[in-house]
Amino acid sequence: MADTSILRATVTRIDGGITAPLGFTSAALHCGIKAKPGALDLTIVAAERRASAAGLFTTNLAQAAPVLLSKRHLQQTTGLARAIVVNSGCANACTGSQGLADAETMAREAAAAIGCAVEDVLVASTGVIGVNLPMGKVASGIRSAGTQLARGRGSDTARALMTTDPFPKEDAVRVETAGGAFSIGGTAKGSGMIEPNMATMIGLLTTDAQVPPAILRRALEESARDTFNAITVDGECSTNDTLFAMASGASGVAIDEDSYPALLEGLLAVSRRLAVDIVRGGEGATKVIRVTVQDARSSDDARRIARTIANSPLVKTAVHGADPNWGRIVAAAGRSGVQFDIDRATVHVGGVRLFENGLPHDDAAPRAAEHMQGTDVDIHVHLGTGGGVEATIWTCDLSAEYVRINGEYRT
Amino acid sequence: MADTSILRATVTRIDGGITAPLGFTSAALHCGIKAKPGALDLTIVAAERRASAAGLFTTNLAQAAPVLLSKRHLQQTTGLARAIVVNSGCANACTGSQGLADAETMAREAAAAIGCAVEDVLVASTGVIGVNLPMGKVASGIRSAGTQLARGRGSDTARALMTTDPFPKEDAVRVETAGGAFSIGGTAKGSGMIEPNMATMIGLLTTDAQVPPAILRRALEESARDTFNAITVDGECSTNDTLFAMASGASGVAIDEDSYPALLEGLLAVSRRLAVDIVRGGEGATKVIRVTVQDARSSDDARRIARTIANSPLVKTAVHGADPNWGRIVAAAGRSGVQFDIDRATVHVGGVRLFENGLPHDDAAPRAAEHMQGTDVDIHVHLGTGGGVEATIWTCDLSAEYVRINGEYRT
Repeated sequence: MADTSILRATVTRIDGGITAPLGFTSAALHCGIKAKPGALDLTIVAAERRASAAGLFTTNLAQAAPVLLSKRHLQQTTGLARAIVVNSGCANACTGSQGLADAETMAREAAAAIGCAVEDVLVASTGVIGVNLPMGKVASGIRSAGTQLARGRGSDTARALMTTDPFPKEDAVRVETAGGAFSIGGTAKGSGMIEPNMATMIGLLTTDAQVPPAILRRALEESARDTFNAITVDGECSTNDTLFAMASGASGVAIDEDSYPALLEGLLAVSRRLAVDIVRGGEGATKVIRVTVQDARSSDDARRIARTIANSPLVKTAVHGADPNWGRIVAAAGRSGVQFDIDRATVHVGGVRLFENGLPHDDAAPRAAEHMQGTDVDIHVHLGTGGGVEATIWTCDLSAEYVRINGEYRT
Repeated sequence: MADTSILRATVTRIDGGITAPLGFTSAALHCGIKAKPGALDLTIVAAERRASAAGLFTTNLAQAAPVLLSKRHLQQTTGLARAIVVNSGCANACTGSQGLADAETMAREAAAAIGCAVEDVLVASTGVIGVNLPMGKVASGIRSAGTQLARGRGSDTARALMTTDPFPKEDAVRVETAGGAFSIGGTAKGSGMIEPNMATMIGLLTTDAQVPPAILRRALEESARDTFNAITVDGECSTNDTLFAMASGASGVAIDEDSYPALLEGLLAVSRRLAVDIVRGGEGATKVIRVTVQDARSSDDARRIARTIANSPLVKTAVHGADPNWGRIVAAAGRSGVQFDIDRATVHVGGVRLFENGLPHDDAAPRAAEHMQGTDVDIHVHLGTGGGVEATIWTCDLSAEYVRINGEYRT
């Protein structure tokens, strides 16, 4: 590109979460899905006018009713939406035709409350599987929420997404470019379990940049690849995973091919923060583990090895115990299915070299163990293929608490 | 085949383990790799004369020195061997050229003790990674063991393989066919960890049937597919996994195409028992889970879904908690990468139908929960593709004890 000045974007963290960008309002309330009095379990994020919209959804064959409905709506509108309605406490998954009818009712009630077409509403649900929504409570909740939409309530939306997430997750940035400034806001919930059941990820992103639907979708896919799709708590992919983005255009800054990198940079900043927070709040997690694989022949190879290490229960338990067990890292890389020469690979933990030229450096283990006592652990594998390609996956350690949370009797 | 009578084999469980078949002797002793005084850590299984031999090895790129050496020896002899020497307490993995020299020394010492060519000796090691063998102790141990070879010591061999396995694993059967009777013996060690490190599987099988090397290899591959290769404790594939078989021919019963099914039936009986015992003795295991997937379009599809369910931490923790959480089973099947229609799938736990036609049968959950209180849990998924193909994978539950064993600080 001829003009590089327009690419230089300054990204600054700001307050306000999902309604930091202009043109968006939100409301959140307790409608009664969650048993705990006052616990927020319903939220609407609305655009003042029809906005560009994009969605990424679970690849699980078992897709919840709200996933099926939101996909259909995005197809019908070819990437436009006015509102997103989300409930927590019930996933509306494996609920058959009744579940689909309930998701449709949620969209219809929200459309009536806001004054838009039903297909302009996107729906997401998170919580227990195989249970029907209490639609009386949900419908009246949506009607109430429709009257309470305002800016400055992003943190309520963040809390209304939570199931057993230990903390709410929100972020926002201001992106300054030569072409003007715009904002990006976001909120997400992660591997909380309700009662307990599936870990479900839901992410909502807003921007007041003016972004055509096709570019918004491309930016969402590209930013998710290295953020929301680069995290793993336990290798499970849920029935409800959903990531939505809406662009209001209210900042007046139009995104085109030239300013696309600035949009992407902003989306990456917000998404990475939210994604790593999901890992930090993973069930039973006490540490965030960043697994970086360098010098692979392809992105796929680098990601596959990083993911195999990140999902290895032996690596995750070793990190939990602050044990610099390079043998488990080498063995996980070796069984990933990617071809490379073990004798050319190097393993560092916390910057400390533990394995090189096929041999251990066990004298360095105590220094690596010290690094592993902290809450953020860096695992670094250099493959030595000469390919030069790198990927990073974030995960958390595996603790007895994970087993306790997920092993408790549900019925 | 014209004559079906020869296919009718009667398989009866007998005592004697690895030396139940004629033509084999063994010895086991404490050479000093394990710190605990008297703990058996070295064993030799020897054939009276050169026997047919076959080996299956880890597919991990990081292969231990004994794996590399045994592969080479089997190539050099085109499937013949006189002895297998195994040590526990040290995996001789990630030990570079010194490790390979040590594995060669083990084979050379055993060959000298027994009086055979060095390439007629197969070697296996299990234990901690990245540590060199104490070769003085190992070499003198091999020399002593060579003088103690005898029948009736199979159970010592079974104990000498153990690392932190909670119990020794051995089995033997007598196979009676129209063509005569022969025996098959076996021993194995599973997911024990030393100090702790990699879970490593080692299996040794003997038979006094007369089996050409190519048929022995085919029978070993075929029987392992549905036994040793159909188990998973934590989805990890180690640097040292090894399965050896030797056939002495001492029974005088020759195996050909017609009697092959009888050999396979016997190998399956011994291998299934040993494999399920490995799962039962898995780290922290309190239950054996049998995951059967029926009515898939192909064996690969059936195995892939069964394996995804068997490796799912959410399914494994649910079983640990005796929670009939069909939602996690459906979700694991749905993310396996195999295409099928969830609405046609049926899920049973302990014979109790929990999910059918896309909808739960939660009224049946208490009966399924009762089944799950036991030590053997059956999970059964019928895909409804009309393909009719089935596969079974055995695994164990995931307990806090697994985390404790693998999270304790090693150095």
